[in-house]
Amino acid sequence: MNPLSTLLGTRYPVIQAGMVWCSGWRLAAACSEAGILGVIGSGSMYPAVLREHIAKYRAASDLPFGVNIPLLYPDIDKHIAAVIEGRVPVVITSAGNPRTHTLRLRDAGIKVLHVVSSAKFAEKAEAAGVDGIICEGFEAGGHNGREETTTMCLIPQVRRATGLPLAAAGGIATGGAILAAMALGADGVQIGSRFVASDESSAHINFKHAVARAGEGDTRLTLKEVTPVRLLKNGFYRQVEEATARGADARELAALLGKGRAKRGMFEGDEEEGELEIGQVSGLIGDILPAKTIVETLLREYEAARAAVGPL
Amino acid sequence: MNPLSTLLGTRYPVIQAGMVWCSGWRLAAACSEAGILGVIGSGSMYPAVLREHIAKYRAASDLPFGVNIPLLYPDIDKHIAAVIEGRVPVVITSAGNPRTHTLRLRDAGIKVLHVVSSAKFAEKAEAAGVDGIICEGFEAGGHNGREETTTMCLIPQVRRATGLPLAAAGGIATGGAILAAMALGADGVQIGSRFVASDESSAHINFKHAVARAGEGDTRLTLKEVTPVRLLKNGFYRQVEEATARGADARELAALLGKGRAKRGMFEGDEEEGELEIGQVSGLIGDILPAKTIVETLLREYEAARAAVGPL
Repeated sequence: MNPLSTLLGTRYPVIQAGMVWCSGWRLAAACSEAGILGVIGSGSMYPAVLREHIAKYRAASDLPFGVNIPLLYPDIDKHIAAVIEGRVPVVITSAGNPRTHTLRLRDAGIKVLHVVSSAKFAEKAEAAGVDGIICEGFEAGGHNGREETTTMCLIPQVRRATGLPLAAAGGIATGGAILAAMALGADGVQIGSRFVASDESSAHINFKHAVARAGEGDTRLTLKEVTPVRLLKNGFYRQVEEATARGADARELAALLGKGRAKRGMFEGDEEEGELEIGQVSGLIGDILPAKTIVETLLREYEAARAAVGPL
Repeated sequence: MNPLSTLLGTRYPVIQAGMVWCSGWRLAAACSEAGILGVIGSGSMYPAVLREHIAKYRAASDLPFGVNIPLLYPDIDKHIAAVIEGRVPVVITSAGNPRTHTLRLRDAGIKVLHVVSSAKFAEKAEAAGVDGIICEGFEAGGHNGREETTTMCLIPQVRRATGLPLAAAGGIATGGAILAAMALGADGVQIGSRFVASDESSAHINFKHAVARAGEGDTRLTLKEVTPVRLLKNGFYRQVEEATARGADARELAALLGKGRAKRGMFEGDEEEGELEIGQVSGLIGDILPAKTIVETLLREYEAARAAVGPL
């Protein structure tokens, strides 16, 4: 048995990433029904909204699912309470210290995975008592580690550091890339960008089309002075680059970012002035598909790639 | 037959990267004798020195080998003449426009591979008439593309763009990573950093030890205002970062770099003031080994990884 599938209670060792503004109950349920772990991204939800998504997921599917909780969320205690009361099977924590909430979640019978960008953070997460690790490379969308370690280099280093079930994230949108992650030592993968451009994603249709249109070189890790994030290049991105080039400090950049930029871009569809968080692998994504079709394609590509790799 | 092995005339579809100050005839011959393509890195050689290395290689091995030629080299015509007169079987060009010299090399019966950092450049290289492509990701040591596309994202995009034999570079120092590159669509790989820390490399022993000691996060892509290069963090790197932080322009940074920094670091062993070009994957390299042992280990790891990847 694959240790990640066993931990998650899924058919396949694949996690649909919980993503702000893009992954509500509908995408999570479609992914779980397709055999992977569907995940509700709570980072863009008020606690009451999260409770509603958990309830709607339950109405749509009996299969295990997860909730992603960024630990820096201001109302974090209410989110923790919501997943405990909602008896959510899996919680994926990110962007914060796993020591604070892991044991409370585990005591409630919840499996906890923590997202890391280095082997050092993987060791800390294991010491904090998590059940599994998700290691996320430089090419991933959204927020990102400061050391800029790519998925190719990150997986083997994290694999050396921990024996826990390990999912790799960043740069994975095809079955070939899943096989690559396994070859590097992961037990499975977490996939984000590919599911942004799905029918069931709650991303605005403009954002989905922007992802499907994106080519190579169209994303960039930026806002390194505030908190590094990979964005699709648009008008807002260019404002950030111009401000950075003329020496803007973290305070100025935070003011330029302001509040609501991510919602404006990803949920309301303002392609020019909004913040569009997406992975480098968007260059490989060319269509908007049902989540079930995406999963079936990944599985088919994985088997084709596995059959194709011969002796050297 | 593997198309890359067929093109190169080697037993395995693996290329030892030609690297400034680190890869002379001795490393190239040891690698070729181990079954991969040994490559002399001419970027740090005067034309007469290159001729000497070609002659010494010929005295040491009858097997096919290559010479890497950065096309921006000031005495480029003399290098081109040296490889043609030396009847070098394979030339790997990088850092420049492949249109200028490819046909002249091919007319001389030389197989030409060009190093690219994007699918767009791969298409241009194919149009220029090259025999094969090496795509090099963000994590690679030395000079690097401006779009920062990682190996994981780059290989499938280049694979879509060209049907030519394709080697992947950047982040590859284990057999598992070779399998990963093949799973992503490459026909084989080019490996640099791992061979810097080999007995036969002409790197200074201090640099070899620095590579073996390097851990995660110890390299960084820097000097982006001049020409992006991935360096091991040391005193010189910190000077560059400080100058960049206070707003130094390209001219100032070029003056700080000065002449001979790379030689001083990699060949003369000045670990603090020299320029130490190495890949992010140095974090995974922990020893200095004979090239033959490195190749044998890569092959063993590849087969172990291939045996380990099961159905999802």
